[in-house]
Amino acid sequence: MAILTTVEHPDDPRIDDYRDLTTADRRPDRPGGRGLVIAEGVVVVRRLLDSPYPVRSLLGVPRRLDELAADLDGVEVPAYSTDADTMARAVGFHLNRGVLAVADRAAPPDPEALLAGARTVAVCEGVGDHENLGALFRNAAALGVDGILLGPGCSDPLYRRSVRVSMGHVLRVPFTGLEGAWPDALDVVRRAGFTVAALTPDARAEPLAAAGLAGERVALLLGAEGPGLSDEALAAADRRVRIPMASGVDSLNVATAAAVAFHAVTGGGRA
Amino acid sequence: MAILTTVEHPDDPRIDDYRDLTTADRRPDRPGGRGLVIAEGVVVVRRLLDSPYPVRSLLGVPRRLDELAADLDGVEVPAYSTDADTMARAVGFHLNRGVLAVADRAAPPDPEALLAGARTVAVCEGVGDHENLGALFRNAAALGVDGILLGPGCSDPLYRRSVRVSMGHVLRVPFTGLEGAWPDALDVVRRAGFTVAALTPDARAEPLAAAGLAGERVALLLGAEGPGLSDEALAAADRRVRIPMASGVDSLNVATAAAVAFHAVTGGGRA
Repeated sequence: MAILTTVEHPDDPRIDDYRDLTTADRRPDRPGGRGLVIAEGVVVVRRLLDSPYPVRSLLGVPRRLDELAADLDGVEVPAYSTDADTMARAVGFHLNRGVLAVADRAAPPDPEALLAGARTVAVCEGVGDHENLGALFRNAAALGVDGILLGPGCSDPLYRRSVRVSMGHVLRVPFTGLEGAWPDALDVVRRAGFTVAALTPDARAEPLAAAGLAGERVALLLGAEGPGLSDEALAAADRRVRIPMASGVDSLNVATAAAVAFHAVTGGGRA
Repeated sequence: MAILTTVEHPDDPRIDDYRDLTTADRRPDRPGGRGLVIAEGVVVVRRLLDSPYPVRSLLGVPRRLDELAADLDGVEVPAYSTDADTMARAVGFHLNRGVLAVADRAAPPDPEALLAGARTVAVCEGVGDHENLGALFRNAAALGVDGILLGPGCSDPLYRRSVRVSMGHVLRVPFTGLEGAWPDALDVVRRAGFTVAALTPDARAEPLAAAGLAGERVALLLGAEGPGLSDEALAAADRRVRIPMASGVDSLNVATAAAVAFHAVTGGGRA
């Protein structure tokens, strides 16, 4: 069981990690200038405890910490127990979910290492919206995608809002950045044996359902809602696939389109 | 062209329909007690102008009304032009999108009429979250679903937030309530020649991709995220299908799950 300690004052320095939470995940005083990993609520805290990120502490009301008792068995970190009002004053707003945990970041895997054990991955270009990226991770986790590679223009999956929207699945689905010139960096994916399939609304692309990707080793290349993939990224893909759309409808949300594509690649053949 | 009129004062009674917009779509003084249909932004206003709902007026800054000039050609309603500050004071908050339109509600179609011309429909039970319902309509429009039937516990698709999240597609995809005892009301769907296929995470259900629904005349029965479909609704369905999920993941968002299912039913065979 974690070391349970009661905290009575919102200014207690032991809970400094939780102070002014709305800005805390971008605090420049943290390693890499990118802040801590912050989990909110029992479900997401549970996923953080089960993740590779080194947990620093928990802060919660007694009822929520009680719910986590079994998960905290053998976890040697402080669990600060307090009342909802003290918590709200430390954090900066009232937190319905009643429990938080913070962790340090961990070094991301090398792309080669991530790809070696994977069958289906997503490669994102320009997915800069935190909520869309979080939802994309949630869908990837649900539909059996093994990892996510982040090209240029993507936001930080460990930003607090992404963690929350993903329901903690950014802590579970391995991800890493694709460094180097773009889209040449896709070569590492291809060299690992993946077919790079770009998802695009372009009418000349193959319909997803007819593309025969189910069960193949596929890297789905996904662009932002609105602008979509760059011409360079589209040109660098091995295949171009589309979700047939009704006339007069522009596009699906990127996380939703990704879910449809993930299912087409992974969903038929598993579980 | 609409009748363009400049409004200079936020209290001008001609723009009463737009006053205190955050509550205006639930105003009890409106027909049926359910308020007006409110469209925000050029794209959604365009969809409202193209919908069966009788438009009452528009309110916008000159630049946005200019963008709509072609759409307003032949539309005999007042278009009130004003500056952003006057608009914000009338509406109650600053509106980034710069243009609004209001319409009266219209009588929903009979379920029989909606079903007669349809090939794929969704039937919702307990989808009470406005954003989820809006997203579900957006996905239905994109993926070629012909109509949506609302069982018990669903929210109002014409609520302002649903209209916005749907990107105006609640104004485009026909919908109606399924009245009467539930789930007996599903009989009307079956009598119209549809196979009622319930989407459920139950491991005993058929995997969606193997269910052979593509191209069939299917009514997808969808429940709320979390509780899912009621036992009664599941029992009343002809088929039970599931999206295979990775272990340890609870569920997809209902609109996302619906998108995956819509694509499986409509996406392979069209466009």
